[in-house]
Amino acid sequence: MNLTILGCYAATPRTFSNPTSQVLEIRERVFLIDCAEGTQVALRKNKIKFGKINHIFISHLHGDHFYGLIGLISSFALLNRTTELHVYGPEGIKEVILLQLKLAKAYTQYPLHFHELRSTEPEIIFEDEKVRVSTIPLQHRVYTNGFLFEEKQRERKLNADALREFKVDASQMHNLKAGKDYVTETGSIIPNRDLTLDPRRSLRYAYCSDTQYFEELATMIQDVDVLYHESTFLQTEIHLCERTKHATAAQAAKIAKLAGVRKLILGHYSTRYDGIELFKTEAEAIFPDVHLADDGKNFNFEADFNL
Amino acid sequence: MNLTILGCYAATPRTFSNPTSQVLEIRERVFLIDCAEGTQVALRKNKIKFGKINHIFISHLHGDHFYGLIGLISSFALLNRTTELHVYGPEGIKEVILLQLKLAKAYTQYPLHFHELRSTEPEIIFEDEKVRVSTIPLQHRVYTNGFLFEEKQRERKLNADALREFKVDASQMHNLKAGKDYVTETGSIIPNRDLTLDPRRSLRYAYCSDTQYFEELATMIQDVDVLYHESTFLQTEIHLCERTKHATAAQAAKIAKLAGVRKLILGHYSTRYDGIELFKTEAEAIFPDVHLADDGKNFNFEADFNL
Repeated sequence: MNLTILGCYAATPRTFSNPTSQVLEIRERVFLIDCAEGTQVALRKNKIKFGKINHIFISHLHGDHFYGLIGLISSFALLNRTTELHVYGPEGIKEVILLQLKLAKAYTQYPLHFHELRSTEPEIIFEDEKVRVSTIPLQHRVYTNGFLFEEKQRERKLNADALREFKVDASQMHNLKAGKDYVTETGSIIPNRDLTLDPRRSLRYAYCSDTQYFEELATMIQDVDVLYHESTFLQTEIHLCERTKHATAAQAAKIAKLAGVRKLILGHYSTRYDGIELFKTEAEAIFPDVHLADDGKNFNFEADFNL
Repeated sequence: MNLTILGCYAATPRTFSNPTSQVLEIRERVFLIDCAEGTQVALRKNKIKFGKINHIFISHLHGDHFYGLIGLISSFALLNRTTELHVYGPEGIKEVILLQLKLAKAYTQYPLHFHELRSTEPEIIFEDEKVRVSTIPLQHRVYTNGFLFEEKQRERKLNADALREFKVDASQMHNLKAGKDYVTETGSIIPNRDLTLDPRRSLRYAYCSDTQYFEELATMIQDVDVLYHESTFLQTEIHLCERTKHATAAQAAKIAKLAGVRKLILGHYSTRYDGIELFKTEAEAIFPDVHLADDGKNFNFEADFNL
């Protein structure tokens, strides 16, 4: 899994900081998560190929997570896209996008599918043979979901030495990778574990932005490998959390600890602060393995996190 | 008058080029003309104070002229704006902005007034004691207006030497600036022209983007001082103008010539071309005084154009 932060600051786009958008590459799929104003430029800057994005997940309809979507959808049309695009987001997202396309007399020539979300319970919203995506209902000022991205179990790795030793026929490789035992020509059974090795561990990534602190969140993201959790404020501004329904870095760390995650990435910083290092310091007092998102930063979960 | 080009390229925002938006400063008023995605960042880069913008003119509802408006309106709210904002644009603009504010549960705390345009004849849409703004109906794929910005006649300048000579009372200055004659205590009349000097010439700026070439346009912008006219294409691509309803640099120059304008600024360049110098070359073959818009470029009509 490979996560590129296109933007991770709260509220308004600024000269040197973008609101929320990120790209998750997972088993050859490229998922866009949130799409603030300026996302299409950030995609270009980070050299992400537009054409590879077939699924866009929108957490909620606040501008700093959403106002770049209509521009990206329009640019896909200008770039003569033909492949399907799937957009997952709160009820209302279809109406507002279609109204803008109608006013511009610019319906897309590619199939554009909306998957409107309204459940307040976690639900699977995308699934194929390699990946599953579910919602994580959050608590914010408007209807908001985080998203849980899971790699499905990978195929078992073939043990080349064992295959030679047992003279396994090439036609059996597919079955072996799928975990089946091997039956020799004489009818004897060689257990799969003697011929294959465990696959690389499947990873889980939870994206949680925007939300206030609530402990039940931890049960929905138990044991994920990487948690991105918003930290709009530091504890010195915790009094702003109740009205704005945001969280502090310390609260993000508490959720990480309660959920037993392996890595915590912080983001969605208020631009009121001069730098972001204090977010890390505050969270590390509670949870040991804290990383700071920043615009243009890339996290390769295997290489950087040794997962 | 002072014109700042925030963006002047067609179609999609790119890393080093913005779609259309410009700021016109005219007699202490700051007008925003079109508002593509990224305009609020371009405003910051060009150090234009957000709070000074009270009037926004939208030519048409294509994304490259309009998709930054909702973000700017939202940012005004986040910045605790209290002064009125007036938005002038095609019918539908109010519905799409209000829908987005409703979905975000983020109505503005400042008064937000929409002036929806639907006339296909020129009409005055803003007027105060110093400035007048009218529409210039254009011909594009969707309902589109250009805008004509006119300084009203300035006050006459006082001639200090003559005032001393005729011992004019200070209470009369206001009347003299307004062009009235001076009546002495003995009842004799001194003509205004003996006591005042002609004011600086009032200027007119016409913004015409996007449009196909049509000669009637010239009659609507006759003798303006500065014309900004779109030139999406060069003559080599004139075959694309019919379908897209855009103009070439040569066609922009023809309009400038027919209208007898003093200065022509070109913009709205297709990003298919490597540079923009050829637009100037092409137009100069028809009209002598051609200038190229570019992102971040500033045109002071008095200082730069000697108007």
